This record gives sequence, structure tokens and C-alpha cells, in this order.
Amino acid sequence: MPLLVTGSIGIDTVKTPYGVSENCIGGSAVYFSMAASFFTHVRFVGVIGPDCPFELSEIFADRDVDLAGLEIRTMSKTFRWKGSYHNTMSEAITDNVELNVLAEAPPCVPAEYKDSKYVFLANTAPDLQMQLLEQIDAPAFVAADTMNCWIDGRLDDLKELLKKINCLIINEDEARALADESNLIIATEKILQMGPSVTIIKKGESGSIMCNATGEMFILPAFPTTVIKDPTGAGDSFAGALMGYIAYAGKADTESLRIAIAYGTVAASFTIADFSLNGIASVKKADIDSRFEALRKLTQF
Amino acid sequence: MPLLVTGSIGIDTVKTPYGVSENCIGGSAVYFSMAASFFTHVRFVGVIGPDCPFELSEIFADRDVDLAGLEIRTMSKTFRWKGSYHNTMSEAITDNVELNVLAEAPPCVPAEYKDSKYVFLANTAPDLQMQLLEQIDAPAFVAADTMNCWIDGRLDDLKELLKKINCLIINEDEARALADESNLIIATEKILQMGPSVTIIKKGESGSIMCNATGEMFILPAFPTTVIKDPTGAGDSFAGALMGYIAYAGKADTESLRIAIAYGTVAASFTIADFSLNGIASVKKADIDSRFEALRKLTQF
Repeated sequence: MPLLVTGSIGIDTVKTPYGVSENCIGGSAVYFSMAASFFTHVRFVGVIGPDCPFELSEIFADRDVDLAGLEIRTMSKTFRWKGSYHNTMSEAITDNVELNVLAEAPPCVPAEYKDSKYVFLANTAPDLQMQLLEQIDAPAFVAADTMNCWIDGRLDDLKELLKKINCLIINEDEARALADESNLIIATEKILQMGPSVTIIKKGESGSIMCNATGEMFILPAFPTTVIKDPTGAGDSFAGALMGYIAYAGKADTESLRIAIAYGTVAASFTIADFSLNGIASVKKADIDSRFEALRKLTQF
Repeated sequence: MPLLVTGSIGIDTVKTPYGVSENCIGGSAVYFSMAASFFTHVRFVGVIGPDCPFELSEIFADRDVDLAGLEIRTMSKTFRWKGSYHNTMSEAITDNVELNVLAEAPPCVPAEYKDSKYVFLANTAPDLQMQLLEQIDAPAFVAADTMNCWIDGRLDDLKELLKKINCLIINEDEARALADESNLIIATEKILQMGPSVTIIKKGESGSIMCNATGEMFILPAFPTTVIKDPTGAGDSFAGALMGYIAYAGKADTESLRIAIAYGTVAASFTIADFSLNGIASVKKADIDSRFEALRKLTQF
């Protein structure tokens, strides 16, 4: 089944202990689509300005990504993010951000995308996420990401959105802030009461936790890797492979979600191995499957 | 097979967001033995002063723990520790410590313990751990714990010890400090080069990682729990059940270590549920086995 994603396309400058990558391709929708396209047909919705130096059709040349939803807004400018990672690289420090098109109206969902059953709303203002979601006729499984600035500044909008989605995929600090609860398991239970039937918490190098409204839980460590050059996009790649597998499977039952989360974990581990999109763009589906099996062996007893 | 443990017996005062427990029983050997005795016969080696208000024979009345190695040193005083935990309780703050007997000569290993094949050296000065180990005739599998103050202050002694043991069980911060390496997987590989054939890293609420010298790895999340009243003794209970299972199995191959680590994870989850020894002392082997199966279901895909 096709998978619709809405999110950012960015011009990133990233500094890590392993080097600097200037004006490279980034953005949540880009990382997400690169990972999701291993599993299913991706319907891409996003906006750039005419200043964007990247040809997305070339970037996704070998991938099953439909760019009919890519808008080039002539009077605007592309989103830019400058960030850095230090020490264990567990946290991104934003050094500079230019929202540009992201501060404007959201893109339109093309008419031929409106029948999408599987939808991912990457992080942006929750009222914009809601406007995007309202353009889809009858989605079957909608997942969304959010971040601390919306939890702090737009909590009412976010709570409205949570009533309309099936799955929230967020970082552990965001989960604690949203639930106002330090124990992550209790925080996850409180988030489920806000609306979504599934909550997935990303814990970076400590893996992820899924809880659902029927009380089932799944916990998976991160794939252990000695090569971490640039963590940018890890969370979006995780969500991309996860939702890509769900759309491929055509169901979001607990068993499918477990496999989806394992694929998400694998995709993230490839993304962080190199700067920008290089890590996830340079692997094949066979590499993904091979590491999926390795992850299974690493965690079974 | 019997399992010998040497470690501390303490009079603890612990403060957490859930309350205060004053002058309660604590110490690494006590937590370790309580958890290990679910699996095997424990040979206990430790020292207290005549001021110790606890009757260890009563504390271990229902457990298979031999106290022939318990020395009451008449001219000394029992080890005391006062600590507190804040916020997410991921770190113990030591508010006061009185080493007392722990600053003196180590206890003698009774003659009837010298044939022990399975040995755990709980955290203390590495030269004392070495003196204790030298009293055992021909151990088959020796595990040890250590902490930052010995890594910082007695690194040469510690490196000598590492050549004599089979398994090091330490916290992630200690592993990073010992290996002088921020990536935990690389740190673990560097520690293996220092001597032990198995390294197990405790990551608190994020679980544990095992690496061995033949390149095998096992990663397990912590058991998810909403009841965390007092984390004291979690690491010692983890090591206790882990080594208890290894001594019971009579082998430390990778498959046995995976199961042992899962049992350690379960024991730690019971310990943290209540103050002092109450969490781990109040459960039965059936509770341990039930949660072991639950942990397996939570992590398989």
C-alpha cells in the first residue's frame, strides 16, 4: 500500500566530532522517504524555495518515491538548519535555523494522494499537521512526530492532533515532557490516554519502546554500532522504515509493529554511519535484511 | 555448583523521592547473595563490626546461603553508606560514607570454600580483590565489579586484576572511563583486550550489553517497571542472579550467559521496587521465572 509522508526538506550544515558537512540535503521527509522506500511506494509532500540546490528526483532516482507532492514555492526560501553534536553525540545542538517555507502555509496534498491509507506527519506545528491530515479522505493508520517546542508552546493544538492519529513516535525527553512524568513507562501510558492507540518512544542509543492501548509492549535495543559519524535523520529514518514496513504489510497489529520497529532500528543504524543522507542512501534492501537478522540474533535468549 | 561471593555488608541510609530508609541492611554481598540464592548454594565472605544491628542468619533464613565466611571483627565497625537519588533516580549521590572494616584487611576465605569454581568479587579496592581471589585454589569462572574511584586511582592494580578474571560486570560510565572511549561498543572491545573473556555493561533503565572475546554480543533492555522506589542494590542483584544461574548451569557459554543476563535483569527489577532488601527478599523463584518469561515476550520479534 502507498505511504504518504509530509515533512521538511532542508539545507543542513552539520558539525560532529568526525567532521563538517556544509549545505547538504536534509529534512525529515527526505530521511523518512529514503528509509520507507525500501518497503513500499512513497507519496512525498513537501515544499522548497527556488534556492534549493538539490534535485530531489535525482536523489530518489533509484527509489520508489513519487514527487508529485513536491511544491517549489517561487516567492519563498528553503528551510535551513545548522546544528552540531558533541561528546557522545546523543543530542543535537541547533546553532541556527531559518524556517522560511516551514513558517508559511503547508503544502497541498495532490488529488491523487487523497486516498492514502498510511500517513506519516513529520514534526511541524501541530495545527499544520492537522491541516495536512484533513486533506486525506479516510486514512487507516496515521503516525506523527512532534518536538518539545510544540509540547511547550502549542499543547492544546497537539492534544487535538493526538485525538486524530493512531500512533505517536517521539523521543524519550519529549514523552516525559508531554506526559509530565519522569517514569517512561507511566509517561507512555499517559500519552495513550491522550488518543493514539500506539506510542513508540525513541531512546537513541538505548533503543525504543512501544506500548499500545491493549496493554501490549515491545522493547528493542538499538543496533550496536561502532561507526557513528552524524546522528542527523536517525529518528526520521527509524520512522520511515517502520511506517514503510507497516504500509507494505497493510496492517498495524502488534506482530507487524514489532517487525516494523526492528526495521526502523536497522535503518537508523545505517543513517548515523555517515554524514547527511549518505549512510541510508548507500545501502541496499539486502543490507537492511541482513542487519535485521543480526539484530534478531543479538537480542534473543 | 556452589558460588562464592566476597563483598560488603552495609548499614545504609537511603533517600529517594519515595521516602527514606534509615539504617537498613545493604551492601553488595547481601544483595548479590539474596539474588544468587534463587539459583544455587552461595558461599558468603564478608566482614562486619560488633555494631552491626542485623542478624544475617535471620535475613538469609529461607535462602541457601552459607555464612561460614562471615567475620565479626571485634575491634572494628561495620561499613556505613548514606545516599540519595533524585529525579529519574538514575544516579546515586553519596552523602556520607564510613568505610570502617572495608578500609582494613580483607576477610579470610574459609578452608572449605577454597575449592569454589564460581566466584564473584564485588566492588572494592582491586588489590583486595586480588588478595581474595588468590585464596581460591582453581576457580573456573571469576567475575568482578569495580567503580570509578579505582579506575581513576588504582588503574594499575585494576589492570592486574583484569588479567586474572573471566568476566567484568560494570556500569556504562565506568566502562567508558576504563576504556577512555565514549562509544560503548568500542569501549567494551577495549576492555576485552585488557584480559576478561566476557564484559557485561550495566546501563540501568536502558538494560545491558554483553560482549565476549570471540566477537559474540547480546543486548537486553531492562524490564519495564512503573514501580521504582529505591535503585540501591540493583547492580548487585543483577550480578547475583546472573552468576547464580551460571553456577547452577555449571557453564558460562554464550547461551548460558544470555539466560543468566535475563535472570539478572529480572532480579534487578524486583530489587528496585522497594527499599533496601525488601524488593528482592519478598519474591519467590516462581515470581522470578514468571517475569523471565514476560521479559522474553517483551523483547522477541
